[in-house]
Amino acid sequence: MSGGDPAGRWWVNGRPARTVEVADRGLTYGDGLFETLAVRQGLPRLLEFHLDRLEEGARRLALWAPDRKRLAAELEQRAAELVHGTLKLILTRGPGPRGYRPPEPVRQRPTLILGAWPARRSGDGGSDVLPVLRGIQVRLCRTRASRNPATAGLKTLNRLEQVLARAEWNDPAIAEGLMLDEAGNLVGGTMGNLFLVHRGRLLTPAVDQAGVAGVMRRAVLETTPSLGLPVVVGQVDLATLAAAEEVFLTNALRGLQPVVEVEGRHLPVGPVTRQLAEHLHGAFGVGADDA
Amino acid sequence: MSGGDPAGRWWVNGRPARTVEVADRGLTYGDGLFETLAVRQGLPRLLEFHLDRLEEGARRLALWAPDRKRLAAELEQRAAELVHGTLKLILTRGPGPRGYRPPEPVRQRPTLILGAWPARRSGDGGSDVLPVLRGIQVRLCRTRASRNPATAGLKTLNRLEQVLARAEWNDPAIAEGLMLDEAGNLVGGTMGNLFLVHRGRLLTPAVDQAGVAGVMRRAVLETTPSLGLPVVVGQVDLATLAAAEEVFLTNALRGLQPVVEVEGRHLPVGPVTRQLAEHLHGAFGVGADDA
Repeated sequence: MSGGDPAGRWWVNGRPARTVEVADRGLTYGDGLFETLAVRQGLPRLLEFHLDRLEEGARRLALWAPDRKRLAAELEQRAAELVHGTLKLILTRGPGPRGYRPPEPVRQRPTLILGAWPARRSGDGGSDVLPVLRGIQVRLCRTRASRNPATAGLKTLNRLEQVLARAEWNDPAIAEGLMLDEAGNLVGGTMGNLFLVHRGRLLTPAVDQAGVAGVMRRAVLETTPSLGLPVVVGQVDLATLAAAEEVFLTNALRGLQPVVEVEGRHLPVGPVTRQLAEHLHGAFGVGADDA
Repeated sequence: MSGGDPAGRWWVNGRPARTVEVADRGLTYGDGLFETLAVRQGLPRLLEFHLDRLEEGARRLALWAPDRKRLAAELEQRAAELVHGTLKLILTRGPGPRGYRPPEPVRQRPTLILGAWPARRSGDGGSDVLPVLRGIQVRLCRTRASRNPATAGLKTLNRLEQVLARAEWNDPAIAEGLMLDEAGNLVGGTMGNLFLVHRGRLLTPAVDQAGVAGVMRRAVLETTPSLGLPVVVGQVDLATLAAAEEVFLTNALRGLQPVVEVEGRHLPVGPVTRQLAEHLHGAFGVGADDA
């Protein structure tokens, strides 16, 4: 039996395959990046945002980046076959000898892995029409997100902190955990970005020291000007969270999720959250609670 | 052509193999640990220290740990075949469905990967007798090591910071780069631990916030009492490095390497370094400059 999702299909460097070399630097050092895309109506959602982030990550890690048009075409083909579900793309620096030193760019033989999963029957079927926003319950994690400008904002394969944070709870009522950095600033959820409405402004943590520059976060930030709402991207502390009027999380697959309970404190699904959900639906086809 | 070291042999879960599943959490999240062991005269050097660190890592990551005796027997068998060279052990949480949440411990199906490389003809042949200590030249890296008590001290598969730091230089005269944490404290080298002799004391950075608790570092720390030298494990800053009388690095494969030049400043191979090298040789069979 495979421990991986049996319904998933995988391709490695364009060919159907389920394995990579043990010497792949993606395995030995986490030397790579990934993207997880929602597929709706045969199209990869927010495709350009995903490709932008992957390119930016490849640039910052000095990783050989696959040709954008070819990669887009491959993702579009898989999305068309999938119709409704999830695509995962992993790009590693490829196999190499022992040692942290990466091969010269011209000698890099990157590994491009693609996985595809059809939507489960419940949950992400039929969520492309705007339903009632379902609020989620979140907690605070003890595991901190470390600060490092070298990798901040990127979706690298170094995700052990998120794994340890997610391992902190089993209660199925809790959908997500919030993580702080070592300085006590909120970074986001283990798998999504955090937004607060506080004194008439929309706040979200900056991702220049820790966290991931989520594609749905970008969609929200590009949507907000139409709301006439001041947006502050910066430091967000626990006191601000405690005083927030509205709180929501964003994630490429789940869209926008209002937080209705955080560590026992109840919150409403407020007007800004509702308006943003409508805008995201109109501009990017994001159904609310799109998990 | 394989991009990995063609001379290397690999086993996965006890069987000869060169691949792992793409869904392995070691690849997708860096959810695992590794050890790199020197093999000398048919034996894995500092075996118990390596097994201790692996067990400690497995405990802290709530990773299923393989039986210590069976693992030791496998490593000893491979070492006997290899006689002189390097063994690499990778332990991951095994394959799993998408999502950071680790499977319940009883459902985990960890992946144990073993790699073996014979010694290159030059360098690590015949270094088991104590030779003249060859000093190395080191630099300071711009890439910082991030602080996180959750993973500090462990040799996890999340090594992207070390990769980025090692990518900063190509000059073959420079053997290693020193890394600072975000607070400006020295953490160590990209692939080894740092020791300074300063005002009659031996100093080394603590590894409770960042860095790796190296097995050769432990060998040094267990050796020092016989020298009657006060040892301080704590914060080490650049000013202390600049004022240090002796500096050396330790690494499981390379043993003890005196630093004779750091960012243009020249240093002697001092008496403490020489004495420690002799003690390491006597107590653990570590040849100097054992690379």
